[in-house]
Amino acid sequence: MKRKVCVVITARPSYSRIKTALTAIQAHPDLKLQLVVAASALLDRYGTAVNYIERDGFNITARVHNVLEGESPTNMAKTTGLGLMELSTVFYNLQPDMVVTIADRYETLATAVAGAYMNIPVVHIQGGEVTGSIDEKVRHAVTKLSDLHLVANRLAAENVIRMGELAENVSVTGCPSIDIAAEVCKQPDLDFQPYEKYGGVGWTMDLSNGYIVVMQHPVTTEYELARMQITETLQAVTDTGFPTLWFWPNVDAGSDGTSGGIRAFREHHDPPNLHFFKNMASADFLRLLINSRGIVGNSSVGIRECAFLGVPTINIGSRQSGRQRGPNVTDVPHDRAAIRAAIETMLASPRPKSEPIYGDGHAGERIADILATWKLSYEKKLAY
Amino acid sequence: MKRKVCVVITARPSYSRIKTALTAIQAHPDLKLQLVVAASALLDRYGTAVNYIERDGFNITARVHNVLEGESPTNMAKTTGLGLMELSTVFYNLQPDMVVTIADRYETLATAVAGAYMNIPVVHIQGGEVTGSIDEKVRHAVTKLSDLHLVANRLAAENVIRMGELAENVSVTGCPSIDIAAEVCKQPDLDFQPYEKYGGVGWTMDLSNGYIVVMQHPVTTEYELARMQITETLQAVTDTGFPTLWFWPNVDAGSDGTSGGIRAFREHHDPPNLHFFKNMASADFLRLLINSRGIVGNSSVGIRECAFLGVPTINIGSRQSGRQRGPNVTDVPHDRAAIRAAIETMLASPRPKSEPIYGDGHAGERIADILATWKLSYEKKLAY
Amino acid sequence: MKRKVCVVITARPSYSRIKTALTAIQAHPDLKLQLVVAASALLDRYGTAVNYIERDGFNITARVHNVLEGESPTNMAKTTGLGLMELSTVFYNLQPDMVVTIADRYETLATAVAGAYMNIPVVHIQGGEVTGSIDEKVRHAVTKLSDLHLVANRLAAENVIRMGELAENVSVTGCPSIDIAAEVCKQPDLDFQPYEKYGGVGWTMDLSNGYIVVMQHPVTTEYELARMQITETLQAVTDTGFPTLWFWPNVDAGSDGTSGGIRAFREHHDPPNLHFFKNMASADFLRLLINSRGIVGNSSVGIRECAFLGVPTINIGSRQSGRQRGPNVTDVPHDRAAIRAAIETMLASPRPKSEPIYGDGHAGERIADILATWKLSYEKKLAY
Amino acid sequence: MKRKVCVVITARPSYSRIKTALTAIQAHPDLKLQLVVAASALLDRYGTAVNYIERDGFNITARVHNVLEGESPTNMAKTTGLGLMELSTVFYNLQPDMVVTIADRYETLATAVAGAYMNIPVVHIQGGEVTGSIDEKVRHAVTKLSDLHLVANRLAAENVIRMGELAENVSVTGCPSIDIAAEVCKQPDLDFQPYEKYGGVGWTMDLSNGYIVVMQHPVTTEYELARMQITETLQAVTDTGFPTLWFWPNVDAGSDGTSGGIRAFREHHDPPNLHFFKNMASADFLRLLINSRGIVGNSSVGIRECAFLGVPTINIGSRQSGRQRGPNVTDVPHDRAAIRAAIETMLASPRPKSEPIYGDGHAGERIADILATWKLSYEKKLAY
Repeated sequence: MKRKVCVVITARPSYSRIKTALTAIQAHPDLKLQLVVAASALLDRYGTAVNYIERDGFNITARVHNVLEGESPTNMAKTTGLGLMELSTVFYNLQPDMVVTIADRYETLATAVAGAYMNIPVVHIQGGEVTGSIDEKVRHAVTKLSDLHLVANRLAAENVIRMGELAENVSVTGCPSIDIAAEVCKQPDLDFQPYEKYGGVGWTMDLSNGYIVVMQHPVTTEYELARMQITETLQAVTDTGFPTLWFWPNVDAGSDGTSGGIRAFREHHDPPNLHFFKNMASADFLRLLINSRGIVGNSSVGIRECAFLGVPTINIGSRQSGRQRGPNVTDVPHDRAAIRAAIETMLASPRPKSEPIYGDGHAGERIADILATWKLSYEKKLAY
Repeated sequence: MKRKVCVVITARPSYSRIKTALTAIQAHPDLKLQLVVAASALLDRYGTAVNYIERDGFNITARVHNVLEGESPTNMAKTTGLGLMELSTVFYNLQPDMVVTIADRYETLATAVAGAYMNIPVVHIQGGEVTGSIDEKVRHAVTKLSDLHLVANRLAAENVIRMGELAENVSVTGCPSIDIAAEVCKQPDLDFQPYEKYGGVGWTMDLSNGYIVVMQHPVTTEYELARMQITETLQAVTDTGFPTLWFWPNVDAGSDGTSGGIRAFREHHDPPNLHFFKNMASADFLRLLINSRGIVGNSSVGIRECAFLGVPTINIGSRQSGRQRGPNVTDVPHDRAAIRAAIETMLASPRPKSEPIYGDGHAGERIADILATWKLSYEKKLAY
Repeated sequence: MKRKVCVVITARPSYSRIKTALTAIQAHPDLKLQLVVAASALLDRYGTAVNYIERDGFNITARVHNVLEGESPTNMAKTTGLGLMELSTVFYNLQPDMVVTIADRYETLATAVAGAYMNIPVVHIQGGEVTGSIDEKVRHAVTKLSDLHLVANRLAAENVIRMGELAENVSVTGCPSIDIAAEVCKQPDLDFQPYEKYGGVGWTMDLSNGYIVVMQHPVTTEYELARMQITETLQAVTDTGFPTLWFWPNVDAGSDGTSGGIRAFREHHDPPNLHFFKNMASADFLRLLINSRGIVGNSSVGIRECAFLGVPTINIGSRQSGRQRGPNVTDVPHDRAAIRAAIETMLASPRPKSEPIYGDGHAGERIADILATWKLSYEKKLAY
Repeated sequence: MKRKVCVVITARPSYSRIKTALTAIQAHPDLKLQLVVAASALLDRYGTAVNYIERDGFNITARVHNVLEGESPTNMAKTTGLGLMELSTVFYNLQPDMVVTIADRYETLATAVAGAYMNIPVVHIQGGEVTGSIDEKVRHAVTKLSDLHLVANRLAAENVIRMGELAENVSVTGCPSIDIAAEVCKQPDLDFQPYEKYGGVGWTMDLSNGYIVVMQHPVTTEYELARMQITETLQAVTDTGFPTLWFWPNVDAGSDGTSGGIRAFREHHDPPNLHFFKNMASADFLRLLINSRGIVGNSSVGIRECAFLGVPTINIGSRQSGRQRGPNVTDVPHDRAAIRAAIETMLASPRPKSEPIYGDGHAGERIADILATWKLSYEKKLAY
């Protein structure tokens, strides 16, 4: 009998971090995929990831709306509580042999708690990393609720083991998002017209002489500062005058501050070198990055995928602090002068080398193989 | 301005583990107590702890019903999800400066998640211990969500630090339940009539020549076995013929199995040496223990309070496995012959020495003092 | 394409009130049944109706736990709120063409609200009747949320129309529970041994010289009185000394009072003419009624099925007040003397005639036919 | 002892419909106000009504976030379910003597259900009216769950009684929103600068030669059409070239369609006669209306307050269909030509007469007086 593997996707970026594993699970003779799509992955405002998932050919077993409106810390808690209640019903009806929870977004804790409490083995993808903000608490709490840990690199594995997990339940698979990057690297040319295919708002600039990409999310635990922080970046990028493709932030406490800051800046300045996109298919986005002069902001893409791709990254602020990084990354504070200077240095420098810190392009297959053979268990003790 | 300390009590045993700290918080000039009573602490079937709390003179700031009926693993998850949703509303309205979560019952995770996500510093009482079952996952996940760790002993402190917490945020206070035990030890005589004061059902035996106490909870992750396991104990205790005061189990997945087993056994055998109680005030229960010939079952009281009290404990099965224990404890499997033999050895042996493994009787004051002076913080990183 | 009909069953008695319609829906060429089982229909304490449903050959599309423990008015509200949240997810995933909600239990309001808010036509079975307690508010609120009304008799139809519903959306189908009664009447002999087949607790009496049946539920809005009320009945029935088969009450606010009253009475009196059952398959229960000397209590079975079966009913208190009744019913207050006197009169009187007040035995087929042909709609206005 | 009156406000427009009653309750010697603010009344996107409530000097007893993000029919159901769960906890802690639910927004059903199930007398403000869409089902379902009905006019009272409510529990008080209008009419001059005081986006036009006001909400049960419908109005109003102050829609299924339509239209046409506001204090808004040449859209303000104020209304589409209206109202379909023609006729016509259809300006006091003296009850039966 096939093992039923229930994967819960709660956001657009999480889909990129599991997609090649989904394909490998679906193709594996001993596994059966149960795919649950929930939270912001169902919402227009965050790019309706569910549409991409269906277009990629995956059948969705269940959909769960659980995002509270208002993007406050209170509502992060309530969204997670509602997710926990609803996912338990979903698991109760699906009776999976294991559940898979991805990375460290706050609402993913619901998947881990539901699985752990229901005596279903919990598999955690991408534990053991170190970052700032609430993600840090979430990630390690999920580790303590999980039974199998499939991590991106050796350092992450060591961290998981130091927290008291048995080494035999920890494997370095790399991150599936790098699989997509590796695949795209085989055909790196920009084979689509961004404005035509994705619309967006703002100015339509000639991209043939180079462009940069910006993606800046609010920092959860400082969310009142979000508006000031985004304005520093907006001003710095505007001042360079260099063509810029800007991506809208995800759902998170404070995204109102960030989104509001962007709207206000556009209203008052309408900067002629900026174009704003809401979302983009992963492969298109990666090709856009490969062909860019670099990425600016605080997205983990700049740290993870761009290490592999050899794309320069200007990483702003504390959101990625603690995360392992390659030579492609320059860290700057939320300061318009510093950001502008870093962009100008970047535009004047040679391209950095590729570094497979977060994976070598074969994570998806490795994950499926381990899920098919791992000795299922949901009991454990602190392994000291 | 006084620091607002919000303590959430979700079950009768948790109340014992925090009571002297509540008193000390209330008496502290720099602290203001906000007391939330939730889950099984409000329910008749589990002894209506809320009544004892009020009788002890504490004002209850808010009450939250969140226990799903049915006592299955699914409903443990849902109870926690509902608790999380409702506690976030409570915290949103109360705006505490810190929240306190106690020990490791499954539903306590809700308190920790709500606090962590709402940027309220989370204080965890009794982390770092090692046991079996789902409590193990819950306890360490709560550690990873908490900012301040007030633990029972040095080994627990070491475990918390090894999991990546900063040593400066970990203090050995002892467990407040030992404070109560220490207080009771000053006047150890059995100063009440158990049958008169607490009623209960079953036979009324003469206790003047000694009696034993039984308290056996279902083991969450094996809940289908609960009925068989309780029957082994029931049969062993019946076979000894020794007067026995039996305490009803708490809410937990499988308590139906345990409760059903007790009901069925009584219906068929009506053992003449057994009397059943639903609950008892802590002080009375401790006096009952001090004056008993020993405790049988799998309650943590046998490991914790009884170490301090010097009461012999026959600990059955895996529920307390991993937990540090003193010379008062004898471990046996779920086997009627083994249980009976251990009881008979116990009845024939001298009383063990007191060992302050879980506290020295001053935990409550220490906790209040730390809460009043600790530098409030809700940001942290893996401290390796 | 077949119309997808989603039926939500939330309790054992509701199953009897829809069962023949389920069979007819399943057999209908233009309908596809989606069966959701929720609330107390999943719980041991209330007879695990879900087991009977599966044994009858129905596939269950989704199961939803939503009963809060504690049986208080507060928890009735929370159970309904949770049901509403979870049923919306179920409907969102199943995309039914209509939802069917049965009668007037408090938690059934969740089905009606979810359907109405999600623009799914709502079909209400058994609206328009008049009773006491919270059921009354629930029933008529469901009517105002529903688009199609399939009622038990002409008076109910008139009531629904007077409340402002269009006559074209109201049909008298009879109640499916009477279909079962009609079927059982074809082979009325008691073809099973109640004690052997259903166990239960209490004394095992000889039933060959007649017996009575008791079923008394708590009255929601007077739940503190529940214990006193049940004791009156217990005492009256005990005093008759007549063999009595007593059925345990359903979930409802106050059933603790009722259940507690029964337990206490048994503990103190252990009446030798009482045997207690937790539940029974509908057909067996009906045969038991047909062969009984009458039913005592406040169950609607005494008013509805017993009218058709011609079984005498002693109806206690206000729970069925307002409900249309036949000549088989004698009303008495919660008073032991009055109850005892009524029982003795009943035992001395001839059997009443059958009256098809609540249906003629063909409700199931009529319901399915209407569901297949009714013009689907979810918009309406007060029709005055 | 004062009667504790718990009023639940879930949206900005509901606040206007209860404000003068809140003042009168607070001032009444026999009443104590408990004010709960929930749902969109807490959200930025819908004007943060809670800020106005506090500025008006009311203390807020509890705040409850319960709006699910995504504005779909599914989420309307979930928002209501969550509201029901949370409000039961609030009522359980506050122990009010009665709860007041306002009008007919979908989430107000939660207040009525919680009250009814918890045996708290439920007071419904503004039942008995007739409109289109889901509000219609909600309003009458709330009537069937309520014990006291305080309605706007005689026709509404008759409708409530025809639905089976006892006449003695129905009173015509008028609507408190008219009290505000009556108060404002005493000093009708526009005493503030709209652009300065409320900001907003779009063009800044000279208003001294007249302006119109637009407020168009999505129609729940046709929400896919919302974008087309709003575009018709946008185009019609743009074509008139007449200065227009446009108010953003409230939360409701489909407001994404409406909001998206407005954003897209602005992006492409940037009409020079439109200015957009998010919200406005009631008194300011009423003065704006009094001084306007008329209101266009589908807000109930056009039907209710404008009848009293004698302001012409062009009412578009079905949202207000069924609602009683005065001579100030012209109905038009969602058609740009029809809307434009109606606006031009309006601009060329004399001002209509004031008609007190929805109140005479003394509703607040009447409501408080009735709440103080009504014989509290939560039991009722269909009164035919």
